[in-house]
Amino acid sequence: VKILGSSGALPAYNRHPTSLIVNQNERLFMVDCGEGTQMRLADFDVKKGKINHIFISHLHGDHYFGLLGLVMSYTLLNRTSTLHLYGPPQLDDMLNMHIGPWRNEMPYKLEFHPTQALKVETLFEDDQLTVETILLDHRIPTTGFLFKEKLLPRKMIKEKIDLYNIPFIEIPKIKAGADYILENGEVIYNNELTTSPKAPKSFAYCSDTAFNPPMFQQIRDADLLYHEATFTEDQEEAAQKKYHSTTKQAALTAKEINAQKLIIGHFSAKYKDLNPLLQEAIEYFPNTHLAVEGTEFHV
Amino acid sequence: VKILGSSGALPAYNRHPTSLIVNQNERLFMVDCGEGTQMRLADFDVKKGKINHIFISHLHGDHYFGLLGLVMSYTLLNRTSTLHLYGPPQLDDMLNMHIGPWRNEMPYKLEFHPTQALKVETLFEDDQLTVETILLDHRIPTTGFLFKEKLLPRKMIKEKIDLYNIPFIEIPKIKAGADYILENGEVIYNNELTTSPKAPKSFAYCSDTAFNPPMFQQIRDADLLYHEATFTEDQEEAAQKKYHSTTKQAALTAKEINAQKLIIGHFSAKYKDLNPLLQEAIEYFPNTHLAVEGTEFHV
Repeated sequence: VKILGSSGALPAYNRHPTSLIVNQNERLFMVDCGEGTQMRLADFDVKKGKINHIFISHLHGDHYFGLLGLVMSYTLLNRTSTLHLYGPPQLDDMLNMHIGPWRNEMPYKLEFHPTQALKVETLFEDDQLTVETILLDHRIPTTGFLFKEKLLPRKMIKEKIDLYNIPFIEIPKIKAGADYILENGEVIYNNELTTSPKAPKSFAYCSDTAFNPPMFQQIRDADLLYHEATFTEDQEEAAQKKYHSTTKQAALTAKEINAQKLIIGHFSAKYKDLNPLLQEAIEYFPNTHLAVEGTEFHV
Repeated sequence: VKILGSSGALPAYNRHPTSLIVNQNERLFMVDCGEGTQMRLADFDVKKGKINHIFISHLHGDHYFGLLGLVMSYTLLNRTSTLHLYGPPQLDDMLNMHIGPWRNEMPYKLEFHPTQALKVETLFEDDQLTVETILLDHRIPTTGFLFKEKLLPRKMIKEKIDLYNIPFIEIPKIKAGADYILENGEVIYNNELTTSPKAPKSFAYCSDTAFNPPMFQQIRDADLLYHEATFTEDQEEAAQKKYHSTTKQAALTAKEINAQKLIIGHFSAKYKDLNPLLQEAIEYFPNTHLAVEGTEFHV
């Protein structure tokens, strides 16, 4: 996960509006796209041609104003592969207002997938990964996104194929967990033939939101949690009023769901120095990190 | 004139979409507002609260996508003074699509003044300055902007007031050019009583446009001309096809209208090094400068 923007609604102190990139086996997914994101992609050497899926959490400008420029730049760059865009239904109308006259002449297809904030849905699924919405608690309909790798098949130990003369047709079954029975009836147990695959990883993106226990069940055990922490602890009332979270609330969320690692971001323009926010969060959840722009978090 | 963005439609090489600030006696006027402009204002220490008038040339995204974020940030900053916005009629609808739900709750008034690209009109006028549209030749309706200072009254030489015992009621007439007649009938000629005011300055902004002789008459003798030069000379055909200009065309425009100084900008992403563009323009108009971001041009 690479952070492109870490500011709250008002950019300040060289922090930029929200955006990040999820790189899953060299496939790039963008989450939110605040103003200036296309310039941040260039600043941090992200190949924008590799992004085929963009997920927009909600229609506050600091989460999508950069989409207009990015979509236009793809046209100028003669992009040809389909771009999948996921976001609230009105986003498509907004895009049409700006790019409508050219939409049919664009060299690539922009395929829009409307999201809804009433029930969890799977937006993307292939053999490696699913992306689900997370229902968040914000002033307007807002969804987070849960990236979950799928459990891969077990890995065949190549030497055993020769050793036991296993026909290729049996291998998919063994990878799926089956034992192998020799002609003489001897059972070779699966754990002698295979090794465990890489454990599937998960990343939960929760911004913007107030403290939101209803989502805990869904995102339990996330390897990496991005949770907004717009304010310090002492601003809990302001946070609640604006449907944002404090450092403490972000950290308690991470603790409660048993996350491995927490990234906090979406910092208010109030704060020039972010260390106090980090210190507060660490008290409740030690493995907390600031969403410093340009930083990569590996899972 | 302070340059905030110098890139063509596709930002590249750390050049940003078009925007600049005209500072006339510490009053700030913004011309165009490409994506990221609010961050550029911060980068170059421009006080955004001092901007009360924003002029948008046309509705290609690289000239207005930054407006959405700026308008939103003014709300978050609790701006109270009216913001005057000048641009093509559809711009207001576009803004409403994004900020409509909040427009009436904003702490300041956003007053929209539609422009039209069929005949020259005066958009702004007070005792110091007028701003007129310039009709440009682009793919969609586009106007440039001509900032013209007014001729100020002549300056009274204070010592002469005492010397000739001139009553205060006579001073405005003298500043306007009248002579003063003493009680004994002696005529004191105006040039003994006053000095010439600062010569009024003018700045013409012409972007985006193809080579456009019909505007020459209107912008003749401009002290400072900003003219786009998206391409080098050898790309004249490409320029014409896209209704953009070459370095040579920008320079010939400056020469033809007898400008004092030329700024070229809106550079294509083709060009990493801009010096060749500058060299080409200088051949036809020596006092040419590159629109390097952050640079201030004094008139």
